[in-house]
Amino acid sequence: MPQGKRIVLASRPVGEPKPSDFRSEEYTLPQPGDGQVLLRTIWLSLDPYMRGRMSDAASYAAPVPVGGVMEGGTVSEVVASNNAGFKRGDIVLSRAGWQTHALSDGRGLSKIDPKLAPISTAVGVLGMPGMTAYFGLLEIGKPQPGETVVVAAASGAVGSAVGQIAKIKGARAVGIAGGKEKCDYVKNELGFDDCLDHRDPNLAARLKDACPKGIDVYFENVGGPVFDAVFPLLNSFARVPVCGLIAHYNDTEAKPPKWASLFMRTILTKRLMFRGFIVTDFAAQHADFLRDMSQWVREGNVNYKEFVTEGLDGAPAAFMGLLKGANFGKQLVRVGPDHE
Amino acid sequence: MPQGKRIVLASRPVGEPKPSDFRSEEYTLPQPGDGQVLLRTIWLSLDPYMRGRMSDAASYAAPVPVGGVMEGGTVSEVVASNNAGFKRGDIVLSRAGWQTHALSDGRGLSKIDPKLAPISTAVGVLGMPGMTAYFGLLEIGKPQPGETVVVAAASGAVGSAVGQIAKIKGARAVGIAGGKEKCDYVKNELGFDDCLDHRDPNLAARLKDACPKGIDVYFENVGGPVFDAVFPLLNSFARVPVCGLIAHYNDTEAKPPKWASLFMRTILTKRLMFRGFIVTDFAAQHADFLRDMSQWVREGNVNYKEFVTEGLDGAPAAFMGLLKGANFGKQLVRVGPDHE
Repeated sequence: MPQGKRIVLASRPVGEPKPSDFRSEEYTLPQPGDGQVLLRTIWLSLDPYMRGRMSDAASYAAPVPVGGVMEGGTVSEVVASNNAGFKRGDIVLSRAGWQTHALSDGRGLSKIDPKLAPISTAVGVLGMPGMTAYFGLLEIGKPQPGETVVVAAASGAVGSAVGQIAKIKGARAVGIAGGKEKCDYVKNELGFDDCLDHRDPNLAARLKDACPKGIDVYFENVGGPVFDAVFPLLNSFARVPVCGLIAHYNDTEAKPPKWASLFMRTILTKRLMFRGFIVTDFAAQHADFLRDMSQWVREGNVNYKEFVTEGLDGAPAAFMGLLKGANFGKQLVRVGPDHE
Repeated sequence: MPQGKRIVLASRPVGEPKPSDFRSEEYTLPQPGDGQVLLRTIWLSLDPYMRGRMSDAASYAAPVPVGGVMEGGTVSEVVASNNAGFKRGDIVLSRAGWQTHALSDGRGLSKIDPKLAPISTAVGVLGMPGMTAYFGLLEIGKPQPGETVVVAAASGAVGSAVGQIAKIKGARAVGIAGGKEKCDYVKNELGFDDCLDHRDPNLAARLKDACPKGIDVYFENVGGPVFDAVFPLLNSFARVPVCGLIAHYNDTEAKPPKWASLFMRTILTKRLMFRGFIVTDFAAQHADFLRDMSQWVREGNVNYKEFVTEGLDGAPAAFMGLLKGANFGKQLVRVGPDHE
């Protein structure tokens, strides 16, 4: 009987995954049943999100069960088909996981045309990593011409696309990567304006030099010390799409900075948006406000309460009270009468 | 000579402002020069942002100089005018600050019509606090019918408007305020669905009970323990407009949680946007991605690099390496040949 091979999650890693957290198994290749296809894996994509799937901490997707095949996107060939939608030899994008062969009922498979591009790009620049870069940068980061975009893991699947798309949009792209060879590639082959080595003990200072006008978009896919270096350089109105935190994926609870990494992890997994604002940022829409709010007040939908301190002399105490919540309603100081 | 009174910043507070940080001064009322008006303050608005103006820490606005008049919005009457745009008796919105009288050249003044609404509302529900609620909630929070909106300082100028606008938009409004009287007002007069006392030692548990479907919009104007209670209840895709952090305004550097408050303070003062995302959130726009990225790859604007591990057996080591940046380009595992 022809045998396949698969790699299963042997145990949930504590901190960094160990070889013993994985187990290799052989299995007899199944025959496709009615409506099924048998897939042979050509390319398995490995991506940082998989660390999350190995853990049973709450996240945006269910974990791989212990003993289960490790999840992953694959480029696979249909080697046998009982499904009218697929024929032998078709190349498909699948989530067959870490195994040489898999059965599928056809759901979730999409065909890849080998004539259009190398088939491996379906799990790379034309697949999930490329999409991550494209949507995160263009829908959230929204780089403008002349702005500075910073991305870490800049030679990787996501980071390399982020910086290049930033350039297409007329922004300045500064990458961060591990080591001289990667940095040279990022600058010379990918055309980033600069690339810094995250192992450099003076990363913070070098990043400041590389971003003389500050940082307008930081595409967050690593966290950790890179984020620490980026944070003070963020310009007003900077955007930080958070799609990954690889520096923290092996964190155990005991490891500092606990709060910061928890915060960012939650922003990521729950897709939260935190956005600071000052009311004057919306000065141009003042007429809209006045129209709506006047009407709501008039119609009784918005009520208000005023908390009046009489006389200017009471202002400091009133203000100090305000910081403690001593006021009940909008704090005002009656400095003079309406009419003298 | 007629005398006015003003309150100046005597010293920069360390932590909570003390009475000695303010000083009251008398001054001779000036005569308006050419093009000037003399204003008499009727209402002085006191607002939390003023704590920031007392400090010389970098923020979005310059601090009040020591010895300078405390800044603040006022509703003032024109009592003498050498400016064709204003006449004696006009009521204007001004930033005359903490003083009984002020000169103005007319710039930045806007007339208030006393027939439309009580003039004090120009620094309240129809002024800056109302606008803060309106834009922060509608432009950033974007509450949808049935969603849960939480706001602290709910009986205050901003919070009261936030909850009521949330109700107008069909959302559930849960307020947090200090003490039973304020909470009763928020529920009974303002029509919030619920209101919790932030002094309750079981605030976190009560908030969870009050928000059985979690929190979709948290309008952040206080920080501190309220934020700690809110954070774990935020739903996926929650929005957190950050407009104030009154619980931290008196923080000194030494006070924990230093990192958390620094983080939120920076989001606020720099109007940063942090937004987590997962690529599948943008599934509906997949065609756009494929169109653009294919073209960019074809035209050589986007390059990519693949880092291939040969054979499924190498997957665990490759994956562990990936988490440390050992890969150089998109990590793939060649599990089988393109064609058998």
